[in-house]
Amino acid sequence: MKIDVKQCAAILSEKDNILILTHAHPDGDTLGCGFALCRALMKMGKICAVINADKIPEKYSYLYEDIAPIRFKQDFVVAVDVATPNLLGELDGKYHIDLCIDHHSSNTEYADNWLLEDVPAACQLMFEIIKELGVDIDKKIAQCLYTGLTTDTGCFRYDSTTAATYRAAAELIELGADNGRINRIMFETKSKTYARLERLALESMRFYENERVAIITVTQDMYKLTGSNEQETEALAPLTRQIEGVEVGITIREKSDATCKASIRTFETVNAAKLAKEFGGGGHAQAAACRFDCDVKEARRRLVEKCTEILNAAKED
Amino acid sequence: MKIDVKQCAAILSEKDNILILTHAHPDGDTLGCGFALCRALMKMGKICAVINADKIPEKYSYLYEDIAPIRFKQDFVVAVDVATPNLLGELDGKYHIDLCIDHHSSNTEYADNWLLEDVPAACQLMFEIIKELGVDIDKKIAQCLYTGLTTDTGCFRYDSTTAATYRAAAELIELGADNGRINRIMFETKSKTYARLERLALESMRFYENERVAIITVTQDMYKLTGSNEQETEALAPLTRQIEGVEVGITIREKSDATCKASIRTFETVNAAKLAKEFGGGGHAQAAACRFDCDVKEARRRLVEKCTEILNAAKED
Repeated sequence: MKIDVKQCAAILSEKDNILILTHAHPDGDTLGCGFALCRALMKMGKICAVINADKIPEKYSYLYEDIAPIRFKQDFVVAVDVATPNLLGELDGKYHIDLCIDHHSSNTEYADNWLLEDVPAACQLMFEIIKELGVDIDKKIAQCLYTGLTTDTGCFRYDSTTAATYRAAAELIELGADNGRINRIMFETKSKTYARLERLALESMRFYENERVAIITVTQDMYKLTGSNEQETEALAPLTRQIEGVEVGITIREKSDATCKASIRTFETVNAAKLAKEFGGGGHAQAAACRFDCDVKEARRRLVEKCTEILNAAKED
Repeated sequence: MKIDVKQCAAILSEKDNILILTHAHPDGDTLGCGFALCRALMKMGKICAVINADKIPEKYSYLYEDIAPIRFKQDFVVAVDVATPNLLGELDGKYHIDLCIDHHSSNTEYADNWLLEDVPAACQLMFEIIKELGVDIDKKIAQCLYTGLTTDTGCFRYDSTTAATYRAAAELIELGADNGRINRIMFETKSKTYARLERLALESMRFYENERVAIITVTQDMYKLTGSNEQETEALAPLTRQIEGVEVGITIREKSDATCKASIRTFETVNAAKLAKEFGGGGHAQAAACRFDCDVKEARRRLVEKCTEILNAAKED
């Protein structure tokens, strides 16, 4: 059942022993959302915890380092910033999901109750929910929410960022969010291993369709060579689209099981979610992802083929 | 005389035939300020114009392209975002400056009346002044002001960005500023030639002093290979310092006369201006520059030698 912010807060207020699920390959928005909600519920005297399938990158440690891990039998399960259950990774299928709070238009409405709003970051929605819960928003909660806002908007850069997003950021700064420090961690710091990976990734970049499509390919060998890992590939996705004239930027990364995953970034001319959907994936109009059961070269070939179709179809319109 | 926003608006309301000066090597903040003020004064029925010493980069054309150039004898001169008269470049000394509107703490209070406030962008201050003037702020004015806010804060990233800056951005978006498009132009667009140059520059990066110093070298050959030029090297300077653990990031570029120039970026631990001064240069604590009468390799050797001295001296302190 679709619910609104008030109903969502009412449901959460009633429940206890709450398990919060974030998506696999956790980013700032899913983690910010999860830990902000966890902190708010803890302030209400409830037992709760955040779990996710993968290791949380070190740079997000300030979101949760003071929260002591606890074991409890959950009575209620919430998924935050999770468009479809399979994005839960290894947690998929392990829990009955009672409530889903999300901002992806590709959301499959998989929970008993779901709250879906068209905002650039799930944390913008979570901020409204926490206000509705009547919790006194402290610095730690503000840090979590600001982290989601800034990471999912590329530091308030993307087209999807609205006046309401900026206002939410202003409020969170007044509530104690350390915007300068958070943005430096998220956007101004490259690990040495990432810097090496980025160099190889840029070398792998190929252009197609009169340089309107740019594709980076990242292989397991590149992780070995650079000491980097898959988590560090997140920052590669925007690099392709930044180049003048590129309308579709794709980063394909090889998984350890020899399958691969593509992150697609586009401008208005091409719908990224539509392209991803052709391969069973999904996402937003300008940022989406899909998986392939083949190597990076074959995935690249299939993606280029589909891009050619889409760009040519657009020409004929 | 130091004045406040109300006094500033009162002075501007009284005057006509107003010439607005922006600083040399114009950036988004000085231009956004100048053209926002010009548009506001024009809406009040006044004659005014914006001038500056250098060619305005093409990417800022949306700020002014609909303003027809006019000739008139100025009765009042305003400098915006100009800390000292010598930053006017070739316009320095040509005009008596009646009013200065600025946000640099290094401002030398050179005008008859001056309005100085500690805000991250001069456009944040200009927004207050234009509101005080009672002008109906249209989309074009909002575009100008948003441009200054976003460029001087690195897209709302820097530490100096406050809740008030975010609120001003929210208001400007509601007034019509096309934030997505402006940020894309300012932060998401790399020319193909720059993208190629960046790749070679990253390949040239060398680390010294236990990877606390990172140096990029750019040669004339690299411009030839990539079709790029020296103007495009400006964006390279921050790349070195972004790498985790790097305290001194240097970009050395070969000039066409076989001399070279080094741009130094540091964090708190090393004073960039002091390092530059060792070679006859200067600048700010975290961003400075100097020149060398030798090739890039020799310049690199000299800089590394001095960095070693400075880092070792700091250790002994």
